[in-house]
Amino acid sequence: MKTLKIIKIGGNIIDDPIALDGFLMEFARITTPKILVHGGGKLATILANRLGVKVNKIDGRRITDADTLEIITQIYAGKINKNVVAKLQAQRCNALGFTGADGNTIVAVKRPVKEIDFGFVGDIVEVNPQVLEVLLQKEITPVFCAITHDEKGQLLNTNADTIAAELAIGLAEQFSTELYYCFEKNGVLTNVNDQNSVITHIDSAMYTALIKNEIISEGMLPKTANGFHALNNNVSKVCIGKPSMLFNENSTFTTLRL
Amino acid sequence: MKTLKIIKIGGNIIDDPIALDGFLMEFARITTPKILVHGGGKLATILANRLGVKVNKIDGRRITDADTLEIITQIYAGKINKNVVAKLQAQRCNALGFTGADGNTIVAVKRPVKEIDFGFVGDIVEVNPQVLEVLLQKEITPVFCAITHDEKGQLLNTNADTIAAELAIGLAEQFSTELYYCFEKNGVLTNVNDQNSVITHIDSAMYTALIKNEIISEGMLPKTANGFHALNNNVSKVCIGKPSMLFNENSTFTTLRL
Repeated sequence: MKTLKIIKIGGNIIDDPIALDGFLMEFARITTPKILVHGGGKLATILANRLGVKVNKIDGRRITDADTLEIITQIYAGKINKNVVAKLQAQRCNALGFTGADGNTIVAVKRPVKEIDFGFVGDIVEVNPQVLEVLLQKEITPVFCAITHDEKGQLLNTNADTIAAELAIGLAEQFSTELYYCFEKNGVLTNVNDQNSVITHIDSAMYTALIKNEIISEGMLPKTANGFHALNNNVSKVCIGKPSMLFNENSTFTTLRL
Repeated sequence: MKTLKIIKIGGNIIDDPIALDGFLMEFARITTPKILVHGGGKLATILANRLGVKVNKIDGRRITDADTLEIITQIYAGKINKNVVAKLQAQRCNALGFTGADGNTIVAVKRPVKEIDFGFVGDIVEVNPQVLEVLLQKEITPVFCAITHDEKGQLLNTNADTIAAELAIGLAEQFSTELYYCFEKNGVLTNVNDQNSVITHIDSAMYTALIKNEIISEGMLPKTANGFHALNNNVSKVCIGKPSMLFNENSTFTTLRL
């Protein structure tokens, strides 16, 4: 089976034009089929501030109200996604931008209201990989932003780490899928302040222990939880680290394994 | 050859949520392969006003400076395009949103500076129809906003009427392409204030006379000029009128012919 790399980048790259250009130049040179998934970084907050739209939080957790969803749609699917696509085209990588609504690729439901109503936030229920498979065969590179839809006309803000994992799972029948979470650290660290404390391999048992000891917490939780979920659903490989893990054989990063 | 309808809608539909929903419901039911091209309407101006970005004009003509391009990218490719795609998905029409950068479908050059520097405005130089052909075969409906790119990483604001015409021309080898310009009038009118004064057929000779007599002017010029350009380049049919021309056999509208 052909390898398909699904690569997720976040705010540390999106918010830094020079880092983004450098990353996209290297990304464009990856010779296997590939999908890019990008988060939103700080640009949505900047636009919200300019428009006087308050960031709504309950218990420290962000709420996606209608105004926020509108801003996210503009920034994620408009500004960021289309500029990334144009920059990849300049590198002769034939990119095509997606939300989950496009081609009905990712269907979600609005998160059920329990203690908190998160607003227009989507929990993914289905990936329809057919359109992506056709495009990947034609050497097109899909570029996803962190928006899905509910098949009833509603766009939904959705975690980009989860989108990347669900795409890797959804495409695992046709490809040997590899999932790469790129962020600002060298991987999962035993000491968050020491970039040299990378845990190079984490298996399920170790994962449980690392959560218990709070070595994996906050920002690392979505990546590791999604990563193990992916490994449990036919994804071949999950790696967490700096983008250099993709381009430099000598770099150190974290690989998850069952 | 299979028929492909390329349908352009403008501000009168985009800016009116009820009209838009009604149009999209009918559009979704068109059984031939189809492409939707949408303009931007007033939403970009509204956002520009909220952000305090001045609309820059020279001799009454709008200039797309960097701030304006950013707003257009957010509104056209983000807010409008993705909401249209989601609404079509709700009607079981498998839509997929595009700028000209996506799939490198429409390549443009920044308009050369003569008397006026229009800023980031694109003149189309090439349509690459391959990706669209593949998707149309799979019953996907492309939805284009009025943005192209220059293959060097720059997005460009581009006239939506021209995009529709160039797509119709670019796809005319694989399909019998029909171009429909939908707007608020019943067609080209001899008296702009009388919706019953529709000229049902306009040929090239008549077209020249209508321009000379200033019956065709302003907003009608891009539609008719693009329409005849399309007819001269293998497009089968060009119609101008209200959206009802697509859905109602008894409606009156203007058909261009050579």
